[in-house]
Amino acid sequence: MKIITISREFGSGGREIGRRLADILGYEYYDKEIIAEICANKGVGEDYVTRALANPDWKDMALTYNRSFFGVSMESAQVDVLLEQKHVIEEIAKEGKDCVIVGRNADVILYDYKPFNMFFCADVASKIKRCQERMTEEEQLTEKEIKKQMNRIDKNRAHTRGIVTSIPWGEKCAYHMTVNTANWNMEELAKAIAGFTQSWFNSKGK
Amino acid sequence: MKIITISREFGSGGREIGRRLADILGYEYYDKEIIAEICANKGVGEDYVTRALANPDWKDMALTYNRSFFGVSMESAQVDVLLEQKHVIEEIAKEGKDCVIVGRNADVILYDYKPFNMFFCADVASKIKRCQERMTEEEQLTEKEIKKQMNRIDKNRAHTRGIVTSIPWGEKCAYHMTVNTANWNMEELAKAIAGFTQSWFNSKGK
Repeated sequence: MKIITISREFGSGGREIGRRLADILGYEYYDKEIIAEICANKGVGEDYVTRALANPDWKDMALTYNRSFFGVSMESAQVDVLLEQKHVIEEIAKEGKDCVIVGRNADVILYDYKPFNMFFCADVASKIKRCQERMTEEEQLTEKEIKKQMNRIDKNRAHTRGIVTSIPWGEKCAYHMTVNTANWNMEELAKAIAGFTQSWFNSKGK
Repeated sequence: MKIITISREFGSGGREIGRRLADILGYEYYDKEIIAEICANKGVGEDYVTRALANPDWKDMALTYNRSFFGVSMESAQVDVLLEQKHVIEEIAKEGKDCVIVGRNADVILYDYKPFNMFFCADVASKIKRCQERMTEEEQLTEKEIKKQMNRIDKNRAHTRGIVTSIPWGEKCAYHMTVNTANWNMEELAKAIAGFTQSWFNSKGK
């Protein structure tokens, strides 16, 4: 079984590459599918899960601040959802199909399955440009707002990673390969990565 | 013209990959050749150049310490050699041949030539293993000594980089691609990278 995990900075295009990579290689693809599975297993809505996963800042809140969240504390909601997410990812691996998993620290959770782990980054200007190109008419954000969102989401990714491993998010040596997506055509990049990952898996099979 | 630059942690195998990459692609290869050129241009010996480039710690020395070095101060010897090195690297680029350049901050020096910039890293245990496998009988170092050498050399690389750019050595987003060499067969890895770099240059030509 071949598992490719993708970690990425917000706006770097890692998700799109993951999708394309799965298409090129004929692998299963898991990203938001994992959230749907958490919802089904826990009997909660997508909004609950998404918000539980997107609250990195409760630690910084003053104790007097109201930490309640859909009737439970933020801490327990987050831990509960993270545990279920870990369970869902492990179940995916147990199915034994070749797959690409985007985000969710799958590289750490599936360590024993020896996945090929990638990280995608890019300079801030490239990431902002990419976000702007992909915004719908309704969500027109200013550059400043995009930057704020970017920082918030990446901070959350780093925070959530800190719960499962002591190796910092984005630490280059923690991944097999780190690619700067700036100036790449995403289709060409996905093809190049597909070739690279196949070399890795072939080399491992020897 | 296609230029590939290679930066690397000591012991990660970046130099070997650079050599193999040049062979596979039929590119010129520059590494110690640059030192020979500096020697010829300045009329100094290899030992002088190597030592001038390998002295990161003069800043930390007490002022009372004798900083003289072959009759000139360490600072001026280092700056002088670094300037000549920059000149030699620029001359290589001006020749216009496709090439692989290992180390020496060629990625920064040749920024205007739009090189494909790579960084190689690996976990400490893998790097020590690699060093041990490549040691001759005369240079049998203990694990502790290898680690010390590794830290000293990487510290020097980071220091020398600091002279030419504000972006830290090894900062993943400063390179197009960062590869963890652990568990790779170097021949397979060089082939995989050759394919990847060709995709980059083809994609740029469009």
